[in-house]
Amino acid sequence: MIIKFTKNVKDTQIKHIESILKKQNFTTTYINGDVYKLLVVIGDTTQLETKRLNVYDFVEDVINIQKPYKESSVKDKRKIKVGNVTFNDDNIVLIAGPCSIEDEKSMDLLVPKLINHHTHIIRGGAFKPRTSPYSFQGIGKIGLEILNKISKKYKTPVISEITDVRDIDIFIKNVDIIQVGARNMQNYVLLEELGKTDKPILLKRGFMNTIEELLLSAEYILANGNKNVILCERGIRTFENQTRSTLDISAVPVLKKLTDLPIIVDPSHAAGHWEYVESLSLAAIAAGADGLMIEVHENPEFALSDGQQSLKPNNYFSLVDKIKLIAKAIGKKL
Amino acid sequence: MIIKFTKNVKDTQIKHIESILKKQNFTTTYINGDVYKLLVVIGDTTQLETKRLNVYDFVEDVINIQKPYKESSVKDKRKIKVGNVTFNDDNIVLIAGPCSIEDEKSMDLLVPKLINHHTHIIRGGAFKPRTSPYSFQGIGKIGLEILNKISKKYKTPVISEITDVRDIDIFIKNVDIIQVGARNMQNYVLLEELGKTDKPILLKRGFMNTIEELLLSAEYILANGNKNVILCERGIRTFENQTRSTLDISAVPVLKKLTDLPIIVDPSHAAGHWEYVESLSLAAIAAGADGLMIEVHENPEFALSDGQQSLKPNNYFSLVDKIKLIAKAIGKKL
Amino acid sequence: MIIKFTKNVKDTQIKHIESILKKQNFTTTYINGDVYKLLVVIGDTTQLETKRLNVYDFVEDVINIQKPYKESSVKDKRKIKVGNVTFNDDNIVLIAGPCSIEDEKSMDLLVPKLINHHTHIIRGGAFKPRTSPYSFQGIGKIGLEILNKISKKYKTPVISEITDVRDIDIFIKNVDIIQVGARNMQNYVLLEELGKTDKPILLKRGFMNTIEELLLSAEYILANGNKNVILCERGIRTFENQTRSTLDISAVPVLKKLTDLPIIVDPSHAAGHWEYVESLSLAAIAAGADGLMIEVHENPEFALSDGQQSLKPNNYFSLVDKIKLIAKAIGKKL
Amino acid sequence: MIIKFTKNVKDTQIKHIESILKKQNFTTTYINGDVYKLLVVIGDTTQLETKRLNVYDFVEDVINIQKPYKESSVKDKRKIKVGNVTFNDDNIVLIAGPCSIEDEKSMDLLVPKLINHHTHIIRGGAFKPRTSPYSFQGIGKIGLEILNKISKKYKTPVISEITDVRDIDIFIKNVDIIQVGARNMQNYVLLEELGKTDKPILLKRGFMNTIEELLLSAEYILANGNKNVILCERGIRTFENQTRSTLDISAVPVLKKLTDLPIIVDPSHAAGHWEYVESLSLAAIAAGADGLMIEVHENPEFALSDGQQSLKPNNYFSLVDKIKLIAKAIGKKL
Repeated sequence: MIIKFTKNVKDTQIKHIESILKKQNFTTTYINGDVYKLLVVIGDTTQLETKRLNVYDFVEDVINIQKPYKESSVKDKRKIKVGNVTFNDDNIVLIAGPCSIEDEKSMDLLVPKLINHHTHIIRGGAFKPRTSPYSFQGIGKIGLEILNKISKKYKTPVISEITDVRDIDIFIKNVDIIQVGARNMQNYVLLEELGKTDKPILLKRGFMNTIEELLLSAEYILANGNKNVILCERGIRTFENQTRSTLDISAVPVLKKLTDLPIIVDPSHAAGHWEYVESLSLAAIAAGADGLMIEVHENPEFALSDGQQSLKPNNYFSLVDKIKLIAKAIGKKL
Repeated sequence: MIIKFTKNVKDTQIKHIESILKKQNFTTTYINGDVYKLLVVIGDTTQLETKRLNVYDFVEDVINIQKPYKESSVKDKRKIKVGNVTFNDDNIVLIAGPCSIEDEKSMDLLVPKLINHHTHIIRGGAFKPRTSPYSFQGIGKIGLEILNKISKKYKTPVISEITDVRDIDIFIKNVDIIQVGARNMQNYVLLEELGKTDKPILLKRGFMNTIEELLLSAEYILANGNKNVILCERGIRTFENQTRSTLDISAVPVLKKLTDLPIIVDPSHAAGHWEYVESLSLAAIAAGADGLMIEVHENPEFALSDGQQSLKPNNYFSLVDKIKLIAKAIGKKL
Repeated sequence: MIIKFTKNVKDTQIKHIESILKKQNFTTTYINGDVYKLLVVIGDTTQLETKRLNVYDFVEDVINIQKPYKESSVKDKRKIKVGNVTFNDDNIVLIAGPCSIEDEKSMDLLVPKLINHHTHIIRGGAFKPRTSPYSFQGIGKIGLEILNKISKKYKTPVISEITDVRDIDIFIKNVDIIQVGARNMQNYVLLEELGKTDKPILLKRGFMNTIEELLLSAEYILANGNKNVILCERGIRTFENQTRSTLDISAVPVLKKLTDLPIIVDPSHAAGHWEYVESLSLAAIAAGADGLMIEVHENPEFALSDGQQSLKPNNYFSLVDKIKLIAKAIGKKL
Repeated sequence: MIIKFTKNVKDTQIKHIESILKKQNFTTTYINGDVYKLLVVIGDTTQLETKRLNVYDFVEDVINIQKPYKESSVKDKRKIKVGNVTFNDDNIVLIAGPCSIEDEKSMDLLVPKLINHHTHIIRGGAFKPRTSPYSFQGIGKIGLEILNKISKKYKTPVISEITDVRDIDIFIKNVDIIQVGARNMQNYVLLEELGKTDKPILLKRGFMNTIEELLLSAEYILANGNKNVILCERGIRTFENQTRSTLDISAVPVLKKLTDLPIIVDPSHAAGHWEYVESLSLAAIAAGADGLMIEVHENPEFALSDGQQSLKPNNYFSLVDKIKLIAKAIGKKL
């Protein structure tokens, strides 16, 4: 941490700050420059409320030097296994399925086709967080049980989004990966409880959250003991509205530099329109993402949610063929 | 709802869409212009997944005309009473207190001073949602019990922020207003459960959320039966970083036009720095806000959270005097 | 400037950086902490391309401590005089008039009414920068000549927006204040040429620019010798679209802290809708702005530009009465 | 255009609006729904100030249906030729070179290497728009003359950025493509003058401009007669600051849908850091971009501008090899 003082700071004021910090076992170095006066503070400041030093009239700014996340910056190329699928192994993982699970019959129609076309994990929403209370909210617990059946029948892992901390047990029982959606990325109560389980967690970046905040939310899970965290970029909110969100493609190389946690991309929610899903998917793989989560629906025009951003199976299969070529071009397997 | 077709749409395709909508009891009018072809759909479309019509190649755009919120757009100037305080009565309501409750003694020192200077409601955080898991997280349930004592002792309503849906009962027991923080504005499970109570709810706008989304979140509470909702603007995230958030002062007149729910402003979180709190407070009152929620701390330099944005009591009292003058200038009482 | 090295930096690498900086007469202090290694560089770094040090693998970050603007941070409460109007004198300056000058007759109808209601300066656009080439672009040079006549006839200063560096001479001849619009805030060629004149310049913040960038643009004018710069906040672009822009009301106290240049607010462009102009105007004055620039039109429904955000004269007069009361409440004169 | 009236609109008021529009030769259809009342207006409204209708109390909203750009939405797959390079021909065009031209010698060292590694066009800044007046501003006209020599000597087209409308002649004389930078995207005086030439123009998207605004700026050039416009996405300003800007990768497929103008990507300015340039470049090609503009410098640590985002030649050559593989995977040539 570096404290920048105002020009007219008094020596006694600097001494006062130094004495407070020394009591907390920090080492300080005072630098008296001609254009600014600084106090460099050495030691672990992640648990210090550093910003409150701004309260003093003679403090112009407090600059944090240390990265605030610890667990997620560990570089150990940890591999996360879900059934026979491994994340972080120079392979591309494909997650696909409908936005919402509508009934068992439609899943039985769609899932085998997806699996036959390189899909590793099946997605399906049971509890849907919707902006309006008047929109379709998902079929709930029954949806999770359908997923469970599908998982066993087709020997393929399944993933679904949790919205209520009280539902953790039924998620653990029925799905292989628990998804935390963008709107719950800072629901810390939920993150802490998930950190106490050992289920793989797919943590989506909030649409108005920084990459640093995503890592700090991952930290809530990791610091509570659960090391199986998969990050997911799904677009951020900006002033541009040709797409539902703006896919932050740079988040892929930035996260690859900052953490060893696997990073996948959700092009469907970012685009908000099926026509752009192909371009964003190929871009994500070329940028270095470890996988994709894509919405696919047999009849998107009748989907109970997010139909406009779902691919029809044929378009998805054609996309998978292209993903294969891009993956090969950058030396990865699909 | 208006459906805009592409130029080369076929008559059979338009007929197809019309027949689907007619089955759902909508009335349609087709308009064949030289520069565009439109289908105007009449009827209540709030429960229709209108956007999925974009799935069709021949649909260029779907434009929603109807406002998606119903309850919050009712114009009945509803008055919300909390103890002897009334919101929406041409008066200014002042809520003040520390960011976090630290102990009973410090509350007993601060609260009487605040009450003696026009403060109507006492705030204090017990459960703190913090970006980093390594930051101070609040003293929890004990904090709520301290608030309860304070409320009885000084006959003044108290408010605190809820972060866990499982805590609703202890909040109902101990506080007079339950606050939903910015990060939980779209925690719909929490909103629904609060909608089933009759406690006044202070709903903060998420720093990533539009005004329309704020009203839709209010709708989750209102539609479940609880009509006692107070809205709170606290700044949105933008590219500017001289302040913690950018106070969206326009939200005050916009919300006054769209809803009759009372609107207060939190200048402390918006500014993120105590020096700017005065200007933002006066601006909010001049713009027409129904009240303010301000962080005050005896020794902000030692506050366990958000010290940099807390006013010392003397600065707060001086601010209250100015608020009084502004309130008078626009014909309101403090 | 502070250089943060990576953990595995070598001593020879640090030495290499130190030797480069010493050649440029900077003093350095090396700090070898357990969690990070820093090099604190002392001296005036405003002309140094500090960020390029990131090129080195062993440099993790470069942190600039020094504020990059010099002239605008001078604190001398400089007063800017335009005719008999003074900015920065504990008074509120009101600028009003139509978005575009349409003809002399309509100005002759409107201007005397405005002057009789406390308006100090008359605005009117002659050259209009419009997003679409198919929109009305202003009546050009004739507009400036109309303004000139109005100025002389009513002994009141006039202001108009420049869009072309080749027009500086005709602006100097015809108007009292030259306005640089939001889209030209970073047209440095224009700013430099205006810096070589001594005309008062009203510099609007770009809707995409930070407060720091606004001050750096002011710096282009000030450093070239023209000290008569008036800053204008007019809203920034965010994700919220209930208003045309989001008025950054916090910019007022932030700029008051960083500079002594006068700051006015344009509520008309920020709101984009006349109904919100009153609230934003009162908020700006309460927050400490030195003045307002407001669009007024006799028949906004027939205005050739921006009619939707223009006040009718009666609404403007009613607003002026309220501004007077707010100004009095905070100890200023109108 | 669709006009939405308030619930309590009177018949005479609707008639009033209809009569105004009929005088201007528009056809109208009135739709009296139970939840809203609409007037659908048919005809070319691009030159109508539609928004000013909001002035009427009884108008709730004005919705524009027609796209405001005409020229850029023409779909004719126009090919743009610059020397022996063609844009829009299923090939990838690579533009590379230093941010600023420093001297002829360094260009003579770098340029042949670039050309030998698939680079089609050489870039180099002569006039640099810099946020701070104290930063290096480019070597000016001499820089353009160096580019001219380079172009002739190596028979390779060159590109440079214009910042002053008065410099058009010397740009036409010396360079093959004139670049309009992000900060000048809405400098309409400059765009109009460039529209009167027949030089190819590379138009960069402003960092806070929408895709629609980019097309409207292109329209200023196209409507004035110059059809040789190449669009360039270079990142937009958001709240995320791990990168200099947020590359809006979705702009590539969105623009491919809306226009036939070629679209290239500048990953260097978007990333702001050389380490991320490779990922963003590959993503852009995979997403369907027609080319890339990349900053390359022999010694970025001593570059006079933007060193931190410049690739060293070896890193650039390695990137070009990867671009070749991705191009092949999607059926394009490099």
